[in-house]
Amino acid sequence: MVRIVRAVRACAAAAALAVAVSATGPAAAYEPIVEKKTFTMDSYTTINGETIRELKVGWEAYGTLNQARDNVILIAHFFSGTSHAAGRYSQDGARGYWDSIIGSGKPIDTDKYYVISVDSLVNLNTGSEHVVTTGPASTNPETGEPYGMDFPIVEIGDFVRVQKRLLANLGIDRLHAVMGASMGALQAYDWASRYPDAVDRVIPVIGSGFADPFLIGWLDVWAQPIRLDPNWNGGDYYGGERPKAGLAAALKTVTLHAQSWPWAQQAFGRTWANEDADPAKSFDNSYAVEATLDKVAKDRAATADANHFLYLVKANQLFVAGSKDTPEAGLKAIDAPTLMLQAEGDLVFFPGLADQTQRMIESDGTPVERARIPGDRGHLNGVLNIQSQGDKIRAFLDRKVGE
Amino acid sequence: MVRIVRAVRACAAAAALAVAVSATGPAAAYEPIVEKKTFTMDSYTTINGETIRELKVGWEAYGTLNQARDNVILIAHFFSGTSHAAGRYSQDGARGYWDSIIGSGKPIDTDKYYVISVDSLVNLNTGSEHVVTTGPASTNPETGEPYGMDFPIVEIGDFVRVQKRLLANLGIDRLHAVMGASMGALQAYDWASRYPDAVDRVIPVIGSGFADPFLIGWLDVWAQPIRLDPNWNGGDYYGGERPKAGLAAALKTVTLHAQSWPWAQQAFGRTWANEDADPAKSFDNSYAVEATLDKVAKDRAATADANHFLYLVKANQLFVAGSKDTPEAGLKAIDAPTLMLQAEGDLVFFPGLADQTQRMIESDGTPVERARIPGDRGHLNGVLNIQSQGDKIRAFLDRKVGE
Repeated sequence: MVRIVRAVRACAAAAALAVAVSATGPAAAYEPIVEKKTFTMDSYTTINGETIRELKVGWEAYGTLNQARDNVILIAHFFSGTSHAAGRYSQDGARGYWDSIIGSGKPIDTDKYYVISVDSLVNLNTGSEHVVTTGPASTNPETGEPYGMDFPIVEIGDFVRVQKRLLANLGIDRLHAVMGASMGALQAYDWASRYPDAVDRVIPVIGSGFADPFLIGWLDVWAQPIRLDPNWNGGDYYGGERPKAGLAAALKTVTLHAQSWPWAQQAFGRTWANEDADPAKSFDNSYAVEATLDKVAKDRAATADANHFLYLVKANQLFVAGSKDTPEAGLKAIDAPTLMLQAEGDLVFFPGLADQTQRMIESDGTPVERARIPGDRGHLNGVLNIQSQGDKIRAFLDRKVGE
Repeated sequence: MVRIVRAVRACAAAAALAVAVSATGPAAAYEPIVEKKTFTMDSYTTINGETIRELKVGWEAYGTLNQARDNVILIAHFFSGTSHAAGRYSQDGARGYWDSIIGSGKPIDTDKYYVISVDSLVNLNTGSEHVVTTGPASTNPETGEPYGMDFPIVEIGDFVRVQKRLLANLGIDRLHAVMGASMGALQAYDWASRYPDAVDRVIPVIGSGFADPFLIGWLDVWAQPIRLDPNWNGGDYYGGERPKAGLAAALKTVTLHAQSWPWAQQAFGRTWANEDADPAKSFDNSYAVEATLDKVAKDRAATADANHFLYLVKANQLFVAGSKDTPEAGLKAIDAPTLMLQAEGDLVFFPGLADQTQRMIESDGTPVERARIPGDRGHLNGVLNIQSQGDKIRAFLDRKVGE
């Protein structure tokens, strides 16, 4: 008895799950090819007081830096993301995840702004040809071997401090705005709290000003399959078999957590993965939603690193804006006008946490605006449906501070 | 630098996480000791057409069966629960999880109703002295060895059919009401759909009339740590080391998923697990929320079985009320007036799914009432705060069908 309830659109759903979002820009707009660059520091001392030698991160930019070097917008990326926020690396390459709002004539207008984006420390995608990062998979110059779990623990604030050094290196000492989604929002809050004199506007999207304990617990749940995979081996796997099954399971959890029930219902219904394989008949038979999530996770795991995942989890758990003692102190330190964008149905960052974040920023009079990104994609609305807030973002960026 | 933000109440939170909820009944009420009994079937054929020999399930009852045998209320239990819905097994034993609403003079009044509850097939808690169940951890009479993953796949409908046989054995052929929380709600819907002539009222709490694909995906995420634990060994572990780490990780996911962010914030804040062990300094150092979840999960795993967990996941994924081809057909088959109770902030069953379930039941004119259980405990509000709906439940049970 075949219990197919709804027509399946599993392929479409799988494509939509992919991080790189294809968006069509104005056909006539000049569109330069994006060049990935590398920033190197001989030595970097973490917030925790440990030293990382030969630190490298990748970065890219869209638009032109003006003479006054005051037209800079920094875009920070999400947990599983990279610096590829807009444009393409080649004529047939995938467009950056926020290409719908960044470009010539778009809300973050590259005819006007110099938009820069940086691969984070311990970036997840060590196997991607375009990502440059430093983390446990990197070679420790002192031993000639990968660091593994000997790599220093880093915080969101360390990502930000490295970005600050990169900008200083480019002669940039202040930001017209800093913006990011999810973990990128955490970096945006951190920038504004850590360097209040260097940030003119903040646009945190689908994030909050500190890691609340429910998120801390979920981050631990995301990570636990990696530690259960015997190939993880305490993080020492670079010479042998990688913990791909554990990493794929971790990425599956993240993928599902970032989605929503309406998405699953529309994309899959209760359709089977294989119409000849009734899930009631065998543990080997699954539903389409399971098979698609498995495939997406396996594909993502192929270019990701398990230890980097654990370091990202730690960095997110530790997050309080500006590395201050309390969320209240961290957010009160923000002086820049803030545009908070939350997503409908977000299961990672809840509206109540945005309320708390807003109150803490406003506690000394800093103005906060808020808007809700609509859609059926849960947390991912913040990436996939950001263009719905285009006018609001454009107006916020255009407004003179103090107006 | 100690970043303790809020006073911790980790011990209180750990206790509140325990499934058995301590509630105080009227001090003067007569309170008999609950006796656990066993129902045995020589042979049971599953919906899938497979035979289970020497099937046993535990059951218990509160109140007195009347002469007409028409005062019966069946209570079905949740995923990690047991038949222990009310009362105590001994003078100092833990009270059943819904003791706040079941008992002498309570909304489900045992002076009036005969309330019966049954351990499900493949019940999780095989190591509990009070649980009687049949599943992969049971001995296969044909081999003299535990079934492991050779145990037949069972559905929610199989749990219900076994309950029906138990009731028939007691001379009971109809239910004044069937009620349950979460997986218990699934059983309540199934009863009303499968046996419309035997059910007079349905009270599904924190559930829906079918497993939607988002839930199917989450159930898979719950299960995946078990399969990653090398001790799981394809389900063949009864002679050796059990997959305790994988099972604890699975139970941790369930526990967190059933909770809410306000609960975590109130119970833990960003407090460290150990005030001398800064989480920023080591991967061995964690937050209080993580340590408590770990402890609760480890304790629960000690008396649970990993294969039973996988069979429960499968049963829940397969769920469509009445094992019908579609949710629409399954829910249209319900004729009994239905009181649906949803929980505020539930992250497992969303309000939109309750809307769909309601519409499908009402499609042929069956009346549905709904109410929302308030509280800061997410899905668990349906267990911990059920007494808030006491008056509504009492009135619904007292009302003559057709009124």
